[in-house]
Amino acid sequence: MANKEKFVYAFGGGTAEGNASMRSLLGGKGANLADMAGLGLPVPPGFTITTEACDRYGKTGAKALFGLIEAEVNAALAELEKKTGKVFGHGPNPLLVSVRSGAASSMPGMMDTILNLGLNQETAEALIKNTGNRRFVLDSFRRFMQMFGDVVLHVNFDLFEDALSAAKKAKGVKLDTELDADDLAKLIEAYGEIILKATGKPFPTDPKTQLWQAIGAVFDSWNNPRAIRYRELNDIRNLLGTAVNVQAMVFGNSGERSATGVAFTRDPSTGENEFFYGEFLINAQGEDVVAGIRTPQQISVAGSRRWAQRQGISENDRRSKYPSLEEAMPECFKALDDIRIKLEDRYRDMQDMEFTIENGRLFMLQTRNGKRTAAAAVRIAMDLTAEKMIDEKTAVMRVEPAQLDQLLHPVFVKGAEAAAEKEGHKIAIGLAASPGAAAGQVVFSAEDAEAWRAQGKEVILCRIETSPEDIGGMNAAQGILTARGGMTSHAAVVARGMGKCCVSGCGELQIDYAARKFCVSGQTIREGDYISLNGSTGAVYLGKVATMDPELTGPFAEIMKLADKYRKLGVRTNADTPRDTEVAVKFGAEGIGLCRTEHMFFAADRIIAFRRLILVAEKVKQLKALTACSDLKELRHKLTDAAAIAAVDQYERALAGLLPLQRGDFEAMFRTLAGRSCTVRFLDPPLHEFLPQTSKEQTEMAQTIGCTTSEIKQVVESLHEFNPMLGHRGCRLGITYPEVTAMQARAVAEAACNVPGSKPEIMIPLVGNVKELALQKAIVLKEIEAVSKERGKTLDIKIGTMIEVPRAAVTAHEIAKEAEFFSFGTNDLTQMGCGFSRDDAGKFLKDYVKMGIYDYDPFQVLDQDGVGELVRLAVERGRSTRKDIKLGICGEHGGEPKTIEFCHRIGLNYVSCSPYRVPVARLAAAQAALKNA
Amino acid sequence: MANKEKFVYAFGGGTAEGNASMRSLLGGKGANLADMAGLGLPVPPGFTITTEACDRYGKTGAKALFGLIEAEVNAALAELEKKTGKVFGHGPNPLLVSVRSGAASSMPGMMDTILNLGLNQETAEALIKNTGNRRFVLDSFRRFMQMFGDVVLHVNFDLFEDALSAAKKAKGVKLDTELDADDLAKLIEAYGEIILKATGKPFPTDPKTQLWQAIGAVFDSWNNPRAIRYRELNDIRNLLGTAVNVQAMVFGNSGERSATGVAFTRDPSTGENEFFYGEFLINAQGEDVVAGIRTPQQISVAGSRRWAQRQGISENDRRSKYPSLEEAMPECFKALDDIRIKLEDRYRDMQDMEFTIENGRLFMLQTRNGKRTAAAAVRIAMDLTAEKMIDEKTAVMRVEPAQLDQLLHPVFVKGAEAAAEKEGHKIAIGLAASPGAAAGQVVFSAEDAEAWRAQGKEVILCRIETSPEDIGGMNAAQGILTARGGMTSHAAVVARGMGKCCVSGCGELQIDYAARKFCVSGQTIREGDYISLNGSTGAVYLGKVATMDPELTGPFAEIMKLADKYRKLGVRTNADTPRDTEVAVKFGAEGIGLCRTEHMFFAADRIIAFRRLILVAEKVKQLKALTACSDLKELRHKLTDAAAIAAVDQYERALAGLLPLQRGDFEAMFRTLAGRSCTVRFLDPPLHEFLPQTSKEQTEMAQTIGCTTSEIKQVVESLHEFNPMLGHRGCRLGITYPEVTAMQARAVAEAACNVPGSKPEIMIPLVGNVKELALQKAIVLKEIEAVSKERGKTLDIKIGTMIEVPRAAVTAHEIAKEAEFFSFGTNDLTQMGCGFSRDDAGKFLKDYVKMGIYDYDPFQVLDQDGVGELVRLAVERGRSTRKDIKLGICGEHGGEPKTIEFCHRIGLNYVSCSPYRVPVARLAAAQAALKNA
Repeated sequence: MANKEKFVYAFGGGTAEGNASMRSLLGGKGANLADMAGLGLPVPPGFTITTEACDRYGKTGAKALFGLIEAEVNAALAELEKKTGKVFGHGPNPLLVSVRSGAASSMPGMMDTILNLGLNQETAEALIKNTGNRRFVLDSFRRFMQMFGDVVLHVNFDLFEDALSAAKKAKGVKLDTELDADDLAKLIEAYGEIILKATGKPFPTDPKTQLWQAIGAVFDSWNNPRAIRYRELNDIRNLLGTAVNVQAMVFGNSGERSATGVAFTRDPSTGENEFFYGEFLINAQGEDVVAGIRTPQQISVAGSRRWAQRQGISENDRRSKYPSLEEAMPECFKALDDIRIKLEDRYRDMQDMEFTIENGRLFMLQTRNGKRTAAAAVRIAMDLTAEKMIDEKTAVMRVEPAQLDQLLHPVFVKGAEAAAEKEGHKIAIGLAASPGAAAGQVVFSAEDAEAWRAQGKEVILCRIETSPEDIGGMNAAQGILTARGGMTSHAAVVARGMGKCCVSGCGELQIDYAARKFCVSGQTIREGDYISLNGSTGAVYLGKVATMDPELTGPFAEIMKLADKYRKLGVRTNADTPRDTEVAVKFGAEGIGLCRTEHMFFAADRIIAFRRLILVAEKVKQLKALTACSDLKELRHKLTDAAAIAAVDQYERALAGLLPLQRGDFEAMFRTLAGRSCTVRFLDPPLHEFLPQTSKEQTEMAQTIGCTTSEIKQVVESLHEFNPMLGHRGCRLGITYPEVTAMQARAVAEAACNVPGSKPEIMIPLVGNVKELALQKAIVLKEIEAVSKERGKTLDIKIGTMIEVPRAAVTAHEIAKEAEFFSFGTNDLTQMGCGFSRDDAGKFLKDYVKMGIYDYDPFQVLDQDGVGELVRLAVERGRSTRKDIKLGICGEHGGEPKTIEFCHRIGLNYVSCSPYRVPVARLAAAQAALKNA
Repeated sequence: MANKEKFVYAFGGGTAEGNASMRSLLGGKGANLADMAGLGLPVPPGFTITTEACDRYGKTGAKALFGLIEAEVNAALAELEKKTGKVFGHGPNPLLVSVRSGAASSMPGMMDTILNLGLNQETAEALIKNTGNRRFVLDSFRRFMQMFGDVVLHVNFDLFEDALSAAKKAKGVKLDTELDADDLAKLIEAYGEIILKATGKPFPTDPKTQLWQAIGAVFDSWNNPRAIRYRELNDIRNLLGTAVNVQAMVFGNSGERSATGVAFTRDPSTGENEFFYGEFLINAQGEDVVAGIRTPQQISVAGSRRWAQRQGISENDRRSKYPSLEEAMPECFKALDDIRIKLEDRYRDMQDMEFTIENGRLFMLQTRNGKRTAAAAVRIAMDLTAEKMIDEKTAVMRVEPAQLDQLLHPVFVKGAEAAAEKEGHKIAIGLAASPGAAAGQVVFSAEDAEAWRAQGKEVILCRIETSPEDIGGMNAAQGILTARGGMTSHAAVVARGMGKCCVSGCGELQIDYAARKFCVSGQTIREGDYISLNGSTGAVYLGKVATMDPELTGPFAEIMKLADKYRKLGVRTNADTPRDTEVAVKFGAEGIGLCRTEHMFFAADRIIAFRRLILVAEKVKQLKALTACSDLKELRHKLTDAAAIAAVDQYERALAGLLPLQRGDFEAMFRTLAGRSCTVRFLDPPLHEFLPQTSKEQTEMAQTIGCTTSEIKQVVESLHEFNPMLGHRGCRLGITYPEVTAMQARAVAEAACNVPGSKPEIMIPLVGNVKELALQKAIVLKEIEAVSKERGKTLDIKIGTMIEVPRAAVTAHEIAKEAEFFSFGTNDLTQMGCGFSRDDAGKFLKDYVKMGIYDYDPFQVLDQDGVGELVRLAVERGRSTRKDIKLGICGEHGGEPKTIEFCHRIGLNYVSCSPYRVPVARLAAAQAALKNA
């Protein structure tokens, strides 16, 4: 029947039923084997059982599925016998096959493979007769039993290894290859007993039984924990399962004219295309290359020479002991090199190929787009463009945006980290909170970090957890290490913002501040000791591992240029300091999308003035209410009580003290931006964050400020909130303390006057109701007008708002009447929209992602269906009343590629992200534009 | 010109330029004066300056406005002179006028009034000549100067009162009336000096100047703090301002044939229509009635007799000393009685009339719809319907729903509270947290409350603040008094739910638990002392003030029947106990819209089992993760560690212990409901709420349960959250601890089997993502099926969800695929939608309402534009994928009339509210249907 389901696709012998476009059905390996066979390349014939069969296997069980496909498999096997002229399980020329997994997405090493299937006493003897090589046949048999026992029969792998070791020990040799045929024959017997004992059944001698069991085992391996975890980590979704590739065996281990190897069309680590890159072993099967007992040889002469040079091997030694394939088997090399060119031409991308040479004859076992480092990805994309192999758009699509991050941070010098690990210097592993590498001397306080840095030392700031007061020290340090706190802890968020290497939540660390030391894995590390951090993996090393700066020129610069050419979204940065701003501009930021003014208040010289202000703010507010008088000047005239007047004075002095500091901050930012826009967000966090929480610090503060500790305690207590996330913060502060808004507005306006060409935009945070914005806007406009008049300058300062409260999103049409721009604060919008406290939700969000309730942690990747829907509604409604409203996003999500694509789709004008995410965002924005063109 | 603005409307002399429909332009008083004049009733002629003029006055200032209206006023004055035959400020027959405020909504006593305007030396002398009554004229002059000095010139009122007292003292008399003409002449001189001294200017003698100043003062009084506060409290919005009524004076104080009084067409306190109800004073001006120095007489003989009876006055004394108007001035009475009938016929509502009799001639000064008690409102509406004066729909619209609450709670016996207050027994005033009256003996703990109650005593539970553990004691008490906590504190919310009288946040109370006493206003109240609470005003009295139960029959039952006839919305109740359910059913609830299962866990016998469960829940969860095994039975088989197995045992035992208790709870509820639906909400609050927070309680718990205090402390700490509102609660608990969901589902299903005809519905709380609901639903369905099979009964249990997370609202089309009903949890939706923590927002929300950012506290009245928009979106989207989805609301807003109207408009099926709000909701729902018909 025409519409009968087809589960088996044959390939080989110059034809194939599949091709490269059938990846999702045949898996990557199967599709490409078919494709190569179709191209006439030397592929051992075989057939692929589809991923749909795997899906069916999971749903209906082995019995039902095997019943369904048995006839097809038998037919394919018969064809395979015909193509090879061999017979499966019988006769003088027995057919052996490999059974390999292969999903649509590459999952190297995660699922199971069985080689040499079809061997039993009868076929082994026939093969020995046929090849005249008893040792080779028995070695293949031994390998087959071991693989099959482990993978299919689930016998403890160590039992086989123990028996192998025992055999070598008995003979007094070290290498497997030193065992002779008789030794192997005995080992095969021993393996048989192991299997009988462990499973209660003898090793299956019927090749058909072997085959079906192996197929089932490969299907099963789709859902082994390792494979599941790999898919989770690599975000591989929506696949049906793995295909199974049954293929005639070719033997790289059948003698000195045989070999097996792996080759790349370009260097996967650098992307270079100087010579044919790859490795092979003579007289070996694939697993030997992986085992690492023998030293592999290089494919090309050039590659071999460079390798020898690096290893310190003389040219003579190299030629005699480690000749390249080009030298050892020139004809096979020639054939392989031709295939290399053909395959790159066909797939227009760097290929990772597996090959086997059997008695001087080359066979291709696999080709796929090769995995590569970020540097290689960028280089290969740009080289292929230059070679006219791909066009610019394809080049832009070829690099994973998130990968770019690898290229922006200091890294360990090549090999240095591996060496440190080899020497056992890895002392702990925490969360990879902020990428990059760092080495320095351990200090335990922010003050020390700043002091040591001032003396020219490089330090690692090591804290149980960090707080806003540690910012100076974090900035001074090369890297930050914390014992507590997740990926969104203060340390992690601030470090990422700074582009500073950070390992957080390293729970094994036992930090003793008083003794200035920490203990981990039985070792004690004291202040001044060197440690090194890998913020991209979370590894912590004892000692100084050498680091180097990244390069931002060459192919990197070229691909960024292409990205800028194709993207529609603007890319701004979230930056609060001139230093961050400088970094971001270097990375291509077109302005600042979020400048958090409160970060400026945490610096030592400002925090005191700001704390003074907080201490009297509530009192002044009460005085205003009592006298029904909102103007400070008027208020003071009305007051008679000396203490009350003093409070107003202190309030005004604190404001007056902050004004020049803020103005200076803004001037420095505007100068660094050199004419780029700067969105200044007004005071946002709840006031309690600015006050010390411990008694000791409170006493210190009291001494500095000249008040009693109990006064401070009282204010701290009055500021306490049950749910600070939903508390008195954002514009609610500006509503309660309008003078702070006025001071900030004046600082912006005066700075704008002082720095010609500056383009400030004022952003009111946490607006939920248009009237909040209207009230704050009135205060801001009044100050701008006043400054404008005083200075005789026309100031064009846009006023807008964050959209971060769900109510703001659904009333965006009202808010847009007052706001010239919206910036979506997706962190808070996620907190309020989903009802998740970012500080607490870690407890259950991981489970939520595991259970598939959310596809991703909504704080990492924007929840498009929910929070994104609020954003979409706000865009639609905002534009309905102000057509030209400028729309952007400034949450942590602004640098996340999936979110960026969403922002592109719903028509935002720009994204804003931390400086080190700017290149990522530029590329992701370009890909979004190309995907949605 | 035809389109010239008109600011002045004349009335009197049988015609009028205005009428009753022009309320918003002429104010209530002005419109009704015009209307009465148009009807030919005896109204002293005059004219009204419009509210638009007041608006213009506020916007452009006095000068501009007066310029605009001067000609009109002069013309109206000239007409007035013509009608009265008198001349303003001159001649032998001088015209005096009153200048009165009058807005579109009645604001009695809030704004200013000036009488006798036009008096000066010249006009006074003419009047004396004219009336032959020097004392009357000088008394009027004295009153005029005092009013004008106070209201227009802002001279301290006490200065006049002091001078008046001095004059009486000098003469050795007590009453004003004992001063003769000469005394008054001297007083007028003294007043003149007071005014000169205070203002630096002499009293204005030019009547035109007097008039314009008075008009300005009345306009000014629109925005005096008292008037603003009154409008806030009475929710009077969107008015332009007050009108000014300038009217020819008639004098109730011009002799023994003169009088002034107030009358009602029906009794405003009971609504009865037995006799003509009202009071008057002979030879007096309006202010004398208010002053309360002389005892007013009654209008009708019947009324007078009843009054005398109540006062213990003999019929003889009554007739001689306090004759009714009917007896004293039978003709005037007859005229007034005719007018009474005419006015009720005209306005079809109970009227509140002011009249003056001048030398035997009756004049009407005002008529308006009379203010009335709830009981009167209901009775009058139903009586008018019976009398065919109004139709049923109008009757339904005539009663303010919120007022009904007054009728549902115990009240103080008539006069008892006033007596207590008179005797100085009012000792404190707190927040009117939950209405009703209560008297009882003071106890200081929930345990004592229950114990004393068991002994038949009536108690008032007095706490600094209450917690969930106090529920039993709160239930046992007659009323609750707390020192801390606002309108939404635990005590307030729970008490309102119970319909129990509560005064909260009574900050003056100094409670000493150890000494079992509290101190307030210098008095010490000890355990066992009687106190009484008025939960509708917040007053606290020492001693036992007599209370009585409300009546729910008669007109109340009739109007409820009418409401049910016209409403479209169903009305359910929020109830967790059979007692509450019974109350609610009595009040007409059609089922339960929200039964909070966790409230059942707080009872003494359940909390222990539940705490045991919490103690091991986390451990069991970890064991499950470790073994990758989610079934408890399987899990136990896999475990080998004895402590681990014990934990699983304890967990299962705790669940098994809770099951029959919950089942019993549900059975009791279902029985009480007798076939009505019952929406059961599964476990909602964060687990930490069930654990004791103080060391002492933790030690007690450890002893009860048999674990260490530090174990408890550890669990309490691990459950701590920074923002519990956004934390691990609602269905998130059920996701983490599926066995709890299963136990609750089984309890519901078994109870449903045991109580024939029961209609449970299961509601999953805090769903933000449809997958949460799907997972919980699967667990629930599995249990229902299991019970159904075990018992051989078909169970039809609907499964739905709360919509209380903004994300749920915007993804309602997805959620509706799984949910058979939505119930909007508008409390949490407000918290998350607006970003307000209910526990913290009090700090700034009051200011927000004052500043007009929100029209009402969004926790009291649903924020329709924002939170309501989320609800509206959810309704629209939910119905788009499930047409017949049942939609309701169960937040605190469900009993609030404005919110109910919103619910009607957006097409919900029902509202659910606390038992005591059920009648309010029924009426409000009917009004909503009629308004939006």
